Amino acid sequence: MTIEEKMTQLEDTVRLLADEREITRLVTSYGPLVDSGDAEAVAALWTPDGIYDVDGLYMQGRDDIAAMVRSDAHQGLIARGCTHLQGAVHVNVDADEAIAASHSLLVLSGDKGFRVLRATAHHWRFVRTEAGWKVARRTSRALDGNPEAHHLLNAGAHGTDVEDRASS
Amino acid sequence: MTIEEKMTQLEDTVRLLADEREITRLVTSYGPLVDSGDAEAVAALWTPDGIYDVDGLYMQGRDDIAAMVRSDAHQGLIARGCTHLQGAVHVNVDADEAIAASHSLLVLSGDKGFRVLRATAHHWRFVRTEAGWKVARRTSRALDGNPEAHHLLNAGAHGTDVEDRASS
Amino acid sequence: MTIEEKMTQLEDTVRLLADEREITRLVTSYGPLVDSGDAEAVAALWTPDGIYDVDGLYMQGRDDIAAMVRSDAHQGLIARGCTHLQGAVHVNVDADEAIAASHSLLVLSGDKGFRVLRATAHHWRFVRTEAGWKVARRTSRALDGNPEAHHLLNAGAHGTDVEDRASS
Repeated sequence: MTIEEKMTQLEDTVRLLADEREITRLVTSYGPLVDSGDAEAVAALWTPDGIYDVDGLYMQGRDDIAAMVRSDAHQGLIARGCTHLQGAVHVNVDADEAIAASHSLLVLSGDKGFRVLRATAHHWRFVRTEAGWKVARRTSRALDGNPEAHHLLNAGAHGTDVEDRASS
Repeated sequence: MTIEEKMTQLEDTVRLLADEREITRLVTSYGPLVDSGDAEAVAALWTPDGIYDVDGLYMQGRDDIAAMVRSDAHQGLIARGCTHLQGAVHVNVDADEAIAASHSLLVLSGDKGFRVLRATAHHWRFVRTEAGWKVARRTSRALDGNPEAHHLLNAGAHGTDVEDRASS
Repeated sequence: MTIEEKMTQLEDTVRLLADEREITRLVTSYGPLVDSGDAEAVAALWTPDGIYDVDGLYMQGRDDIAAMVRSDAHQGLIARGCTHLQGAVHVNVDADEAIAASHSLLVLSGDKGFRVLRATAHHWRFVRTEAGWKVARRTSRALDGNPEAHHLLNAGAHGTDVEDRASS
């Protein structure tokens, strides 16, 4: 190989590593930001019209997401002591889009100590924007036997998209 | 340094980063794949004769591993709702082999909500194959005071191998 | 761009990736090392005068940290079976210093199975030394509603430092 060819190959590998790193950093910042109630910073992880679809709540756009963080329900969790612990994240980049799978635990503090309130499956879709990678859609379902949760994990691990709830 | 020397140095660093990234992706895909019951994809993380040695069960080869995923025991966990949450992974690459340490939690859904069924120590051995990095052996023991679990974590963190159960 | 300019750009990206990787490996080795009681190796993650500030205990220097690992309290946890599971880590590198945020769970084995003894927020400060990246200060508070824990997570996610307890 010429030095130019080596350079091109190296650039391709480094671009993939840098993309995965940036995407992973979005995911790893979610827990610390949401547990500290930083509504603006949480919302800014998404695209302006990004979707956050959790059991029982369908948010679209940053205002919806920031409102969830500021809600009495979420502020109540923070005051009691909540931990959104994200496990290791599996990212699949395909040019300017990416899909990821992850698990998280919501651990809550209470009179009898700490307990796992919920274990959740996440399917993430990311897009490359002028402001860097952003979350286009995050779909989350509790792992309570719901087959939707299994589908999210499997599609996320294989890098395939899932149908949007609003269009289904 | 000449540009050729700089290139060689850069290639070495990028190769290490790319190896660790590929290995980490094997580990991070395990949970989503096993919680969604994808027996073929779980088994394909291992080499054809790879070993998965957990408390009470010694699997060798992809058929054994796929059979575990398809077993009534595992399918029962999936139906109730199970989460194999993998914590952050510590990988040590040495040329064409690698050793890693990790923790995972098995969280189960039930009538009284979610609970931690098991916390487990993992020691992973990976090999570089023509089909990319694969798991050659994964040894897992519950962290219930068993000194074997401590040995697995320590060897994994230091990048040293452990004895195979079958040869001990 | 000339090939020299491309090379410089590539070197900058790879340096950032390599720094984050080395820092993340410090964090990911902590749990396996502390759960296996490897006092020397745990202490060596810190700078010689590094600080480890947890609820109710302020350690400064490697001797303090090694003594914590060797203490009856910690050895008792190991004997019963303890898991310091680290979630995904969010690292912010700024030249020769870095700040990170992470969550961890301390899971304990007992007569009634496993339970979450504590969920903790961590703010990490790292410095580049001649022996590689080291922990200069780790500040940890249980997520039990304590506003300090929220501040640690938020500062860690945004890459800003926190005041040292000893100087406050």
